[in-house]
Amino acid sequence: MTRQRFVGHKPITARRCVAVGRLHLRASTVQAIRRGAVAKGDPIAAGEIAGLLALKRTNELIPHCHIVPLSGSSVTVSIAGPRSLSAKVEVQAIGPTGVEMEALVGATVALLTAWDMVKYLEKDARGLYPETRLGPVEVQVKEKRPRKPK
Amino acid sequence: MTRQRFVGHKPITARRCVAVGRLHLRASTVQAIRRGAVAKGDPIAAGEIAGLLALKRTNELIPHCHIVPLSGSSVTVSIAGPRSLSAKVEVQAIGPTGVEMEALVGATVALLTAWDMVKYLEKDARGLYPETRLGPVEVQVKEKRPRKPK
Amino acid sequence: MTRQRFVGHKPITARRCVAVGRLHLRASTVQAIRRGAVAKGDPIAAGEIAGLLALKRTNELIPHCHIVPLSGSSVTVSIAGPRSLSAKVEVQAIGPTGVEMEALVGATVALLTAWDMVKYLEKDARGLYPETRLGPVEVQVKEKRPRKPK
Amino acid sequence: MTRQRFVGHKPITARRCVAVGRLHLRASTVQAIRRGAVAKGDPIAAGEIAGLLALKRTNELIPHCHIVPLSGSSVTVSIAGPRSLSAKVEVQAIGPTGVEMEALVGATVALLTAWDMVKYLEKDARGLYPETRLGPVEVQVKEKRPRKPK
Amino acid sequence: MTRQRFVGHKPITARRCVAVGRLHLRASTVQAIRRGAVAKGDPIAAGEIAGLLALKRTNELIPHCHIVPLSGSSVTVSIAGPRSLSAKVEVQAIGPTGVEMEALVGATVALLTAWDMVKYLEKDARGLYPETRLGPVEVQVKEKRPRKPK
Amino acid sequence: MTRQRFVGHKPITARRCVAVGRLHLRASTVQAIRRGAVAKGDPIAAGEIAGLLALKRTNELIPHCHIVPLSGSSVTVSIAGPRSLSAKVEVQAIGPTGVEMEALVGATVALLTAWDMVKYLEKDARGLYPETRLGPVEVQVKEKRPRKPK
Repeated sequence: MTRQRFVGHKPITARRCVAVGRLHLRASTVQAIRRGAVAKGDPIAAGEIAGLLALKRTNELIPHCHIVPLSGSSVTVSIAGPRSLSAKVEVQAIGPTGVEMEALVGATVALLTAWDMVKYLEKDARGLYPETRLGPVEVQVKEKRPRKPK
Repeated sequence: MTRQRFVGHKPITARRCVAVGRLHLRASTVQAIRRGAVAKGDPIAAGEIAGLLALKRTNELIPHCHIVPLSGSSVTVSIAGPRSLSAKVEVQAIGPTGVEMEALVGATVALLTAWDMVKYLEKDARGLYPETRLGPVEVQVKEKRPRKPK
Repeated sequence: MTRQRFVGHKPITARRCVAVGRLHLRASTVQAIRRGAVAKGDPIAAGEIAGLLALKRTNELIPHCHIVPLSGSSVTVSIAGPRSLSAKVEVQAIGPTGVEMEALVGATVALLTAWDMVKYLEKDARGLYPETRLGPVEVQVKEKRPRKPK
Repeated sequence: MTRQRFVGHKPITARRCVAVGRLHLRASTVQAIRRGAVAKGDPIAAGEIAGLLALKRTNELIPHCHIVPLSGSSVTVSIAGPRSLSAKVEVQAIGPTGVEMEALVGATVALLTAWDMVKYLEKDARGLYPETRLGPVEVQVKEKRPRKPK
Repeated sequence: MTRQRFVGHKPITARRCVAVGRLHLRASTVQAIRRGAVAKGDPIAAGEIAGLLALKRTNELIPHCHIVPLSGSSVTVSIAGPRSLSAKVEVQAIGPTGVEMEALVGATVALLTAWDMVKYLEKDARGLYPETRLGPVEVQVKEKRPRKPK
Repeated sequence: MTRQRFVGHKPITARRCVAVGRLHLRASTVQAIRRGAVAKGDPIAAGEIAGLLALKRTNELIPHCHIVPLSGSSVTVSIAGPRSLSAKVEVQAIGPTGVEMEALVGATVALLTAWDMVKYLEKDARGLYPETRLGPVEVQVKEKRPRKPK
């Protein structure tokens, strides 16, 4: 038997989760992003929109995740250092289940979107990406507090 | 940073929205629809079903829209004049956010579905559609009223 | 006019539904499943995961179904006899609408997934499946009980 | 390891598949469909559109199915007798893989859509559906013929 | 019967289509977009990404559209005048069917995304949008030329 | 302007890509996986199926990715050491574009699915996951070779 957790008996609480992730790139690629010189457009703006859309589809991707009407989310992609981008995704919901998978899906898709846009700058002579890697992606904050329904 | 609005603090109200849209066609195409003579079937019935399905996926299409468990919706496609179809979409929900985007997506997809089915009747010699155009699509009604949860 | 039922006025109740379905196969195929000898992997495990994912998308497939944040679901695929697999899907939700379509979609997709994985064992010389058939798929249990929101 | 079949080496052929399915209903429900007296609209028209849309998403539902650009499909839902509806789905494609799962998904979703629309007519006093059942759903025709690419 | 056109016999040609659309807004909203002063971010960047994603899902939204592996697409949203945004979407594919619906879906979703982000600036005292309307959305260019497959 | 690359002029080649990823877990969690003692079922089987489904939807998640009819894919999740799972995803296609994003999406979703299933074993007293992290996820192999169409 394969089952989602049955959560009908669980209390409704206000949930908040923040996930963070990192994408390692070449220094020259990070400079191209900073200068707005990436051929397909701005990987930061595109990654943020793609992450925002993807996190709402978490239940379609991850089998045991519930359909959760979120009460809000934000996705921030930024240059985190000379050789990396970071994504920070905050998700909130009022319900019986946590929202860490939503935050992790958002962070991951945001960074993969950026990778896709800069991969032509990361390729070596064989077409491989020796310096590109995703991770670590982690949960940084998770909170819940009791809440009376309105 | 890209963010959906955080609405966890907003009151739960009963929402209702009606969007309307128009598709301009050739008079001969509207007559074919009226006579049931469109090769791929009835654009009115197909448009209504397609609009009903599409509006439930608004949050997958429009980045800042929330997942909203709607409490009901209706899609009506009709012949609006000798040269046009209209779509009228009503959406209701009980929650913290409005549902105008759902109504607009439903109206738009309903009319694009009809366009797709009659495009072979709208083509000129170059394969273009000089008389076919979608719009205006507008919000006609928007209401909310306080509601105690059951 | 095509409409989903408007359910904003309906009471919020705890819903539970169980659907069951059957897939008829060759005896030799059922033996292959039992021995773990299916080339693409275990149809039981794959069917359960695919059913669990599919039932959450019921509203995208069935036009008049509402988006329902389920409170849990389980999918069990098993060998039901020398010539058949069965799927049993339980779905629970707290809301104004029933969840029988979710259970039926889950059972159906679970069994079609299994069919797909064993179809190479079911083919006759013409490439047809004379012994493979899906059904009956039925609702076995449906319950609702009043529930105060938390 | 879980794998889709690798089909890069397989010849490109023209494929055609027909699946058929049955939905058993009360005689009074079939009469209501015939009279156009179903409250949510025509289950035949809605089932056909829903089946046509669903079969294009087969690869999203069935794990081992490939993304297949179909060269056409048709869905026919009809009254098959005093107590049943039938669905017949034909799918064609030019490629290395068969399209039977597409046809089966189309037939199944078409009939579940009809079930959903008439379930209020099929309910007994306990809210159950003692006479409603889906199946058998089967592959009726499967053909392939060699084809030179254009 | 509901059917997609069967196109297996049609020649493979290189297709190109451009659709254009317009969104009417308040002059003050257009100025806010120009100044980068929209609270949820840049409607132009978000609309372009959302349009690019949506046009690839045309076959999931429009029943009679085929799954088309596009050979490329571009979405341009711009300020078109003191009171309007425009979207211009170009889609190319090599195959047996046209891609006008893809271009129209892209243009429409791009503009609805922008509408969603600025709707707080368009609201009147009753919460309505007296000046906001989508349309016209039209096909501007459609070309096909014979092509030998590689 | 936001654009997918236009690839209509690019040669059709046989593409193959392998991505690999790592999920760091507690030693006790890895032991629970090994013993088949995870409450929601086997994270390895579930991750493989979820990854296989997700990689086919890459173009819906990553804005600039094309719809690619893959010629095959495989997802392998395994215990990689006392404190980690690994995912290895191979994707093949015959077409004008690479398939590295498909492989990366498959590896990422496979591992996030496993994380979701074991998160109850990874939580500390505050509900956080101090030892759980995804990454690195990388492209390991990428090949293309000229291919005459069949």
